[in-house]
Amino acid sequence: MIFNDGDIIVAPATPTGGALCLVRLSGKGSIELCDRVFRGRRRLAEAATATLHYGEIVDGEEVVDDVVVSIFRAPHSYTAEESVEISAHGSRYVVERILALLVRCGARMAEAGEFTRRAFLAGRMDLSQAEAVADVIAADSHASHAVAATQMRGAYSQELEALRGQLLHITSLLELELDFSEEDVEFADRGELLSLLAHTLQRVDSLAASFALGNALKEGVTVAIAGRPNVGKSTLLNRLAGEDRAMVSEIAGTTRDTIEATANIGGVIYRFVDTAGLHATDDRLEQMGIERTAEALRKARIILWLTDKDDSSIEKDLIGYIPSEDQKIYRIITKIDLRTEDAACAWWSEANYPTIALSAKSGEGVDQLQKALQEAVDATGAYNGEVIVSNRRHHEALREAGRELEAAIAALEGGVPTDLLSEDIRQAIHQLGIITGEITTDDVLKNIFSKFCVGK
Amino acid sequence: MIFNDGDIIVAPATPTGGALCLVRLSGKGSIELCDRVFRGRRRLAEAATATLHYGEIVDGEEVVDDVVVSIFRAPHSYTAEESVEISAHGSRYVVERILALLVRCGARMAEAGEFTRRAFLAGRMDLSQAEAVADVIAADSHASHAVAATQMRGAYSQELEALRGQLLHITSLLELELDFSEEDVEFADRGELLSLLAHTLQRVDSLAASFALGNALKEGVTVAIAGRPNVGKSTLLNRLAGEDRAMVSEIAGTTRDTIEATANIGGVIYRFVDTAGLHATDDRLEQMGIERTAEALRKARIILWLTDKDDSSIEKDLIGYIPSEDQKIYRIITKIDLRTEDAACAWWSEANYPTIALSAKSGEGVDQLQKALQEAVDATGAYNGEVIVSNRRHHEALREAGRELEAAIAALEGGVPTDLLSEDIRQAIHQLGIITGEITTDDVLKNIFSKFCVGK
Repeated sequence: MIFNDGDIIVAPATPTGGALCLVRLSGKGSIELCDRVFRGRRRLAEAATATLHYGEIVDGEEVVDDVVVSIFRAPHSYTAEESVEISAHGSRYVVERILALLVRCGARMAEAGEFTRRAFLAGRMDLSQAEAVADVIAADSHASHAVAATQMRGAYSQELEALRGQLLHITSLLELELDFSEEDVEFADRGELLSLLAHTLQRVDSLAASFALGNALKEGVTVAIAGRPNVGKSTLLNRLAGEDRAMVSEIAGTTRDTIEATANIGGVIYRFVDTAGLHATDDRLEQMGIERTAEALRKARIILWLTDKDDSSIEKDLIGYIPSEDQKIYRIITKIDLRTEDAACAWWSEANYPTIALSAKSGEGVDQLQKALQEAVDATGAYNGEVIVSNRRHHEALREAGRELEAAIAALEGGVPTDLLSEDIRQAIHQLGIITGEITTDDVLKNIFSKFCVGK
Repeated sequence: MIFNDGDIIVAPATPTGGALCLVRLSGKGSIELCDRVFRGRRRLAEAATATLHYGEIVDGEEVVDDVVVSIFRAPHSYTAEESVEISAHGSRYVVERILALLVRCGARMAEAGEFTRRAFLAGRMDLSQAEAVADVIAADSHASHAVAATQMRGAYSQELEALRGQLLHITSLLELELDFSEEDVEFADRGELLSLLAHTLQRVDSLAASFALGNALKEGVTVAIAGRPNVGKSTLLNRLAGEDRAMVSEIAGTTRDTIEATANIGGVIYRFVDTAGLHATDDRLEQMGIERTAEALRKARIILWLTDKDDSSIEKDLIGYIPSEDQKIYRIITKIDLRTEDAACAWWSEANYPTIALSAKSGEGVDQLQKALQEAVDATGAYNGEVIVSNRRHHEALREAGRELEAAIAALEGGVPTDLLSEDIRQAIHQLGIITGEITTDDVLKNIFSKFCVGK
C-alpha cells in the first residue's frame, strides 16, 4: 500500500538554466536538516512559518551558494508537512551540490510527483485534484488551463461528491430494507428512487459526454485540411499557423506526407493536419500519402474540405471518405483572389455543408474560417468554470458508472430483488470513488504520479 | 548615462517546464502593484519584509493561478529596492498570463541582467561582483564555480580596492608636492615610493598572470590528443570521456576531423580534442584533417603525445610541431595491454617529457594520466578562496595597469617631473577602477549586462 514513509524528500522544483532555482524539501525534520547546511543570522529552527531567510549553504567551511530559504511549518505547506524551499542561483552545478549535500544529511531524492502524492495522502486534495496539478503545469492555452484549473480547485470533486452522496443515501435505504427483509417493508419509495437514479445517470452521462470537448481542449482540436491536389491546402496551413510550415509549390502533389502545425485561436489550440492531395494515382509514394490522409481524416474532429471547382462534391474530392456523425465539415472555396465570379456565385453555397470562401494567399476570408473554428469548439463553458472532463481515466470510470446506473434502473423497473439492485448502485459508487481516489490501488497511484515531473 | 529609471520591472527568474516558476518584480511600488492582482488573506501592502503569502493571482474575476508571494521591502532585497517574487505553477501559459497581467498594471518587462544592474547601481555590489553572478550561474564544475563564487563574494574587489587605495595615497602625496612645487619639497620619499610601486606592480602582474589558469578553469582546459595514425587516440578519448564519442577502428586514419569531448576530472572540466593522425599524406581530406590538428595543437594547454614505437620522437610524431613554452606535454605509451616488454622498458622513459604508459582499451594506467592532468592544472588555490582572474575584460585592464605602473617606475627611476609620474599612476588607478566599475561607460555596462539571462 502506498503511504507516506516519513522520509525527508528533496528535489529541484524548477529547471536550471535561469537566474534562480528552487530546491524543495518536505517531511518532518526538514527545517532541522537545513540548519545543518545553512548559515544565516539565526537558526531556521527558530523561524516562524511563512518567513524568508537570507544566508549561505555551506559544506563544512566551503560556501556553496548564497540563498534565500522559505520556511513552511506543518500543516501550512503544500504537502501539509514541514517544508523548506531553497532559492539558489540557477546553476546546474550549484543545484547538484545542494542536492548532494542535503542527501548526505539524510534527505532522499523525491520520486516524480511525490510532493503532490503526499498532499493527496494528507487529504489536502483528492486524486482528481492531484491529477489536475499536472494538467495545470502542462497547460499551453487558455482553454486547457481553464479546464485543469477548475478541476484543481475542486469544482469537479464537489460535483462527484454530491453524486456519490446521493447514491450512498439510496443504498443505505436499500440495505436497511435488506436488514428488515423478513418484514417486507420498503423504506425507499420506488418511484422516487427511480427519479433519483435517472437524475444521477443523466449527470454522469453528461460529464462523460463532456470528455470529447475536454480532451480536445486539453490535447488540441485536430483539424484535417483535405481536398484535391493543388487546391491550396499547404498555403492555408501556413496562413493559419502563421509560419512557413508546409512546402508550397504550383506542382500538384507537393505535399506527400501529412504535415502538422498548431495555432492558438481564441485560447484553444488547434492542430492542423495538412494532407496529401486526394486523387486516384499509381505513384506508390503518393498512394502511401493518400492512405495517411484517410487516417488523418478519420482522426479529425473538424474537416476543412477545400475546393476550387464548381463540379466538386465531397465524395469525389475526398475519394469516397464518408465523414462520421460527430465530425464537423466546412467546405472552403479557395483562391478567391484569382476568381472573377461574383462573391455570391451560386455553386459556392449549394453544398450541404457550411461554406466559407477565402484566399489563403491574400488572407481574405480567413478570419471567417477562424470564427467558424471557434464556434465549432465552444470553450466558453470552460472559461466560466463549468466542469468539463478531460482525463481519460475519469472518462472510463464515468462510463462504467453510467452502465451500472442503467443496470440499476433496469433492475428497479424489472422488480429484481433489492440486494441485486443495491449491488449495481454500489458498483456505480465504486466507479465515482475511483476518480476522486477514495478507492484506489497502488498501481493506479503509481501510474498517476509517475507522469508528474520531479519536484511537484 | 545608464541609471535606474525607477520603473517596476518584471521577469521570470526560472525557466518554465518544472513544477514551479518564479516571477520577479522590483522597483518602488512593486508590492502595491501586486496587490491589484493578488487575492489573499490580507493585503500585501500590510505585509512585513521577508514574509510569504499564499493566495491567488486574479484577472478580474478569473483566477489565473494559486501562488505563494514573497515580500522584500527596501533595502532588504537583491536590488536593494522593494521587490516581490511570485511562485506560480511552472506552466508557460500561466507564467505568460501573470507577466501580461503585471505589465498591464504598469510593470515593464526587465531587460537581461537588469535586476543585477540595479543591484550594482544601488551599490549592493561592484561591477566585478555583478559579472561573477553570471559566472556563478554558468558554472559547470567545482573549479569554475569556486573562481566565480570568490569573485562574487568580493574577495577580488577587496584586493583591487586595497591596491587602488595604495596608489591613490601615492598620487595624493605627489599632487601635494605639485601644489607646493615652487618650494621644491618632497613629501614622498622616492625610495619608499619605488618600493610601493614595485610591490603593487608585482601583485597586479600576478593577478594578470592568474588569468591563464582562471580562463582554463572557467572555460575548460583544452587537451590535444595527438600522435601517429592508429596509435589509439580515439580509444583514449572515449576512455577519458567515458562515452563512445569518437569512431574507433583498426584502420589508420579513421578520425579525419577533430572530435571533442569533455570530462570532469577532480572538479575541473577538460576539453579533449581528438586529432587526426599526423603523417605525410597526399590524400586531400586527410591533409585538411592534419591542418586542423596543427591548429588544435597550437590552441591546447596540454598535449598528450601518444606513441607506441621505440623509434618515436615528438618532432617525427607531430610532424614538426614545436610546442610553445607554456604548453605541458605528456608522452603517452599506448597499448601496454598488447606489449610483452618489461614495464620499465628503457625507451619508455628516455624522452624529455614525463611519460605515462597505459592501455586505453583495458583502462590500465589511465588513472595515472588523470592524476597527471590534475597536477598540470592545480585548482587548489581556487578551492581555498584564492583570487584568480577569469574575466578577459579584467585581464586586459590589469595588463594595462601593469604597463602604466612600469612606466611610473621607469619615470621615477629616470627622475622625470612629478606631474608626469603622477599621470602614469592615475592611469593605473583608472584601469583598476574599470574592473570594479568605479569608472565605467554605458557601452561597457550594456555589454556586460546583455550577457545575463533575463530575470537576473
